[in-house]
Amino acid sequence: MNLDSISVVLVSTTHSGNIGATARVMANMGLSRLSLVTPRAAIDEEARTRASGADHILDSARVFDSLPEALSDAVYVVGTSARQRMSRWRVFDPQGAADTIAGATISGEPAALVFGRESSGLSNAELDCCNALVSIPVDSAFPSLNLAAAVTVMAYALRCRAMEAKEPNEAAGARVEIPATAGEREHLFAHLVETLDDVGFLRSHGREKLMRKIRYLYSKAQPSSEEVAIARGILAAIRQKIRK
Amino acid sequence: MNLDSISVVLVSTTHSGNIGATARVMANMGLSRLSLVTPRAAIDEEARTRASGADHILDSARVFDSLPEALSDAVYVVGTSARQRMSRWRVFDPQGAADTIAGATISGEPAALVFGRESSGLSNAELDCCNALVSIPVDSAFPSLNLAAAVTVMAYALRCRAMEAKEPNEAAGARVEIPATAGEREHLFAHLVETLDDVGFLRSHGREKLMRKIRYLYSKAQPSSEEVAIARGILAAIRQKIRK
Repeated sequence: MNLDSISVVLVSTTHSGNIGATARVMANMGLSRLSLVTPRAAIDEEARTRASGADHILDSARVFDSLPEALSDAVYVVGTSARQRMSRWRVFDPQGAADTIAGATISGEPAALVFGRESSGLSNAELDCCNALVSIPVDSAFPSLNLAAAVTVMAYALRCRAMEAKEPNEAAGARVEIPATAGEREHLFAHLVETLDDVGFLRSHGREKLMRKIRYLYSKAQPSSEEVAIARGILAAIRQKIRK
Repeated sequence: MNLDSISVVLVSTTHSGNIGATARVMANMGLSRLSLVTPRAAIDEEARTRASGADHILDSARVFDSLPEALSDAVYVVGTSARQRMSRWRVFDPQGAADTIAGATISGEPAALVFGRESSGLSNAELDCCNALVSIPVDSAFPSLNLAAAVTVMAYALRCRAMEAKEPNEAAGARVEIPATAGEREHLFAHLVETLDDVGFLRSHGREKLMRKIRYLYSKAQPSSEEVAIARGILAAIRQKIRK
């Protein structure tokens, strides 16, 4: 696992201090890629103070207008969630999440770890962009974790995993597929929605609920780029046939 | 291991925000005993803000004039140190430290985890009060860890250790799906082959090779029974549309 290829993505952060504290602990743990999606706070003096010298991370942070844009090159995306039980996604603890990210990025492919708003976390639509979720095992009596503390736990778990994995273990080398990116995945879903509309399937079923189920199935499979291409080829053939 | 019997001891803390953030993450991780040795910062508004509701921990914090006083009832003391190699002490990583604390407090004896000054850590005399040290494995290029971040890592490590002791496999429990049977899977493949024949897709592609790829994708996803049913519903809708 290459820590340089893992992005920390903060969505709509409202406290600049949290952005700064995130940059600092990223530098501590050897992470370097910070993305800000529609930030509600600036990289201001408070952020610089809390970053305590990790200015290189703040200065190279990239800002995006939407989460899918920020994730477009990621082959594997883990979202943080306070909810411990969500039947729709695989939910890992921090070490499990670090393991699964390591497994998905064996050849240094980009991955992303997404953190939601201080107040309300990630929306369902944002969770839909993720392959899996991570839930930090907090005390149910006081579950509200500071954003930078959540980043700290996850960055630490990733660092432990990266240090463990210095000598690549053999079983891990079996995969030769090129994993599909989040961008390819969104194209496939769009194509699928069009096709299901063509055949009238979405009219008879709860559209959103169905697509969420399909996204979940997809997230479990972690398809390769080629597999996505095959699926799109099939959809194209179906649509062509229908329109004849 | 009983988290209630482990004290977090902050020595000569200079930033009240760090005291507040420490209280918050202690509450998140199920720790409750906070001790302040010769604090240089007060439990002020900044501390309250950063504690974000963990006032019970701030209000019950005990203040001491010296570290030995704060540690008087502890059977085992671990000090945090940025230095990775110190010949005089055993130095653990965070999980190792949590393990050794668990081992020393099997019957719920009090233990303590000591954190030094933001600027300079613990003095040699203070380190002498400890049974062992813990060093968080930070990047040597940017080793300066925020005090509350260090508390976060250690509190998380302790919590993981305490949960392990209770229920070994908890985090894995999120999935409650009924996996599809091999029979359901074969029906799905047969249905898919028919549909692909209908749309002429298999004529233009190597039939066997394609189906092998689809089977492989399926095996990665480990679909539930419901997911297979949805896929078959979609195929049925497609075939119906084509035959109209």
